[in-house]
Amino acid sequence: MVNDSVMTALLEFRSKRNWEQFHKPKELASALTIEASELQEVFQWKTEEEVAHLLSSPSREKIVDEIADVAIILSYLCHDLGIDLNGAVLSKLQKNEAKYPVEKAYGNAKKYNED
Amino acid sequence: MVNDSVMTALLEFRSKRNWEQFHKPKELASALTIEASELQEVFQWKTEEEVAHLLSSPSREKIVDEIADVAIILSYLCHDLGIDLNGAVLSKLQKNEAKYPVEKAYGNAKKYNED
Amino acid sequence: MVNDSVMTALLEFRSKRNWEQFHKPKELASALTIEASELQEVFQWKTEEEVAHLLSSPSREKIVDEIADVAIILSYLCHDLGIDLNGAVLSKLQKNEAKYPVEKAYGNAKKYNED
Amino acid sequence: MVNDSVMTALLEFRSKRNWEQFHKPKELASALTIEASELQEVFQWKTEEEVAHLLSSPSREKIVDEIADVAIILSYLCHDLGIDLNGAVLSKLQKNEAKYPVEKAYGNAKKYNED
Repeated sequence: MVNDSVMTALLEFRSKRNWEQFHKPKELASALTIEASELQEVFQWKTEEEVAHLLSSPSREKIVDEIADVAIILSYLCHDLGIDLNGAVLSKLQKNEAKYPVEKAYGNAKKYNED
Repeated sequence: MVNDSVMTALLEFRSKRNWEQFHKPKELASALTIEASELQEVFQWKTEEEVAHLLSSPSREKIVDEIADVAIILSYLCHDLGIDLNGAVLSKLQKNEAKYPVEKAYGNAKKYNED
Repeated sequence: MVNDSVMTALLEFRSKRNWEQFHKPKELASALTIEASELQEVFQWKTEEEVAHLLSSPSREKIVDEIADVAIILSYLCHDLGIDLNGAVLSKLQKNEAKYPVEKAYGNAKKYNED
Repeated sequence: MVNDSVMTALLEFRSKRNWEQFHKPKELASALTIEASELQEVFQWKTEEEVAHLLSSPSREKIVDEIADVAIILSYLCHDLGIDLNGAVLSKLQKNEAKYPVEKAYGNAKKYNED
């Protein structure tokens, strides 16, 4: 997820505030949706052109901050559950390779059980 | 986010399927919420004890897979927007240090404008 | 969803601001998640006791407002797609009766394909 | 929200399964996001044209069902918290009228603190 020194800083931040007690797995999963939704809100009602403008305006910092918030929660979650994220992603990627074979999925984001 | 070789595998997966066209920033932000919400659903209606049981049962694999899905979307987003996630997290952590000073935040997850 | 006079007020609000152009079905679905997530955030990190306290404190107004925001988006969505919400709920309830037969579902929120 | 006879059917469904115990306000708020996100997923990766096609295809039933799921959770929440949804929406609409005056908001979905 994040590198070791950043993870250490995250854990120190949490420990200093005695916030481990709030970080139950279910709460962190809920927080992940909340943070992701805040990122989504930055793009709400916007056209593709307006999003492009946003990304090269001072609002970019807000977007980066919201992405960081998601990453922070995800990092705590992986740390607390003992998940090796690189391994988890590779394992899921293999499942996705089987689920979306190139010959069927090429240029097509539909699931195969859709109309 | 993920290490370089995993990121390379993610980009190859996407490129082989010609899926870059679907991964507009706004769509990825939306996908991030959808994936986070699927993780949240695994814990839905469950008590703390049931969650603990889940995490040491075969359902653990489902949880790890859902976390991987969030990490996959987050990785594409950071890649596409040119965001250094370690730097973004450190920068946000500094803002959080200022926003939640230890003396006020110790053992207290409330925001200061709440009742 | 809401009664006819409230729906009329919602449509007037939107029309006066020329906001129909933003309310594409996909955008409204995205807005629904964003608003629901804001409600969820009010309860974040809180114990059952703290939530009960919140509901009888001045914060109750914030909760009611967030619920109203969800209802507003849902009302626009049903209006724009020509959905009769009472009929839709009854139809879905019948499917849920079949999916969760009383003898299996009594006191049990688990889906049947879970551990 | 829904009419009295539909609300009665929802409460009977829940009572017969002894599911009130799961419907704590925080859980219902979480369920609301999960259901809204499932609706959002139906539109994921889709262009405006594809969404229009979806809405006039057999997939329309899935969309109506997902909207019903959101309405069901919202109905339980309002019932359990004693919220009059029509009143809540009118009250929130008045706040929105003040927040988004017509002369500033006409044809413009931006919040005023944005770039």
